[in-house]
Amino acid sequence: MKVMSRQMVRPGGRSARVQASVHAAVRELVAENGRETLTVPQVAQRAGVTPSTIYRRWGDLQELLSDVAVERLRPDTAPGDHGSLLSDLTSWAEQFLDEMSSPTGRAYIRDALLGDPDGGNAGQCSAYAAEQIDAVLARAAERGEPTPGTEAVIDHVVAPLMYRILFRPDGLDSAYARRLVTAVLGPADR
Amino acid sequence: MKVMSRQMVRPGGRSARVQASVHAAVRELVAENGRETLTVPQVAQRAGVTPSTIYRRWGDLQELLSDVAVERLRPDTAPGDHGSLLSDLTSWAEQFLDEMSSPTGRAYIRDALLGDPDGGNAGQCSAYAAEQIDAVLARAAERGEPTPGTEAVIDHVVAPLMYRILFRPDGLDSAYARRLVTAVLGPADR
Repeated sequence: MKVMSRQMVRPGGRSARVQASVHAAVRELVAENGRETLTVPQVAQRAGVTPSTIYRRWGDLQELLSDVAVERLRPDTAPGDHGSLLSDLTSWAEQFLDEMSSPTGRAYIRDALLGDPDGGNAGQCSAYAAEQIDAVLARAAERGEPTPGTEAVIDHVVAPLMYRILFRPDGLDSAYARRLVTAVLGPADR
Repeated sequence: MKVMSRQMVRPGGRSARVQASVHAAVRELVAENGRETLTVPQVAQRAGVTPSTIYRRWGDLQELLSDVAVERLRPDTAPGDHGSLLSDLTSWAEQFLDEMSSPTGRAYIRDALLGDPDGGNAGQCSAYAAEQIDAVLARAAERGEPTPGTEAVIDHVVAPLMYRILFRPDGLDSAYARRLVTAVLGPADR
């Protein structure tokens, strides 16, 4: 919502078409040549817009890369239903770690954090995780299972995973993700 | 240690003097004009070295800024002794949040994460926090208090604070830091 209103994009309008073609141009050029040599004029040429269109709308290359990163970090499926809160949250956390700790995932997280003067893009990444956790917890509540709050899962599962991906990646594996989930659902019932 | 060995700096040698004057030049120029307009030739001129000295040693401006940031994030005092583990850890966490969530702290964290292709600088930031926590826990153990492990404090105090500073800053305050500390020391005794 924040991203949409900030850019004032109406779906289907000219603005939305420009955004789609500029985002596509960035993804293609990064796939072809890597991000090191990417320039705004290059993106503009590939997208069929003028460089000034890009500068006016995104400010600079770093902000454009940040918007593209957030778009790529948007989850494209709902969390799977494995029959219990423990299985659902474990499976979600393992997949989150897998995606975010991959070289591509790390590059997107850095881009999202970087070209983001007002913090809106980093906030959007966190909102995606919160929405997925909400869905898992709502399903568990429907089953009648006791559940922790979304913020507790963010503090004690998402935050340690992301902190270690960014600052302390040694020994990060899915067993660690499973331990965090077990602890947050544990008998202490925070 | 990692930073030192990577840069092969002997204290007192020419290399250490170059590093000290280049770091000082960056800090002065950022204080005078902000970081937006900072360039390597400008830093070189102020530090009295050639630009190629900087490029050879740091690669580019972003890596130089990252090294300066890590240096600034190094704690300059040992954690205070307030008589109990709860007081010591609470006071440390409040100060950590205060420093890291300030505009300067955020800028340093971003710099440290960014110009850091091999992850050594981000790792160094995390090592600083771990050393401080080790000191707090060792003092508590000497007093005979039961203590959680350093990694548990990183996962459940440092990580949530840093995650929220970077991704979800709304409503971040010292009461939140205190709740995290109380929970990690709580009766569940993880």
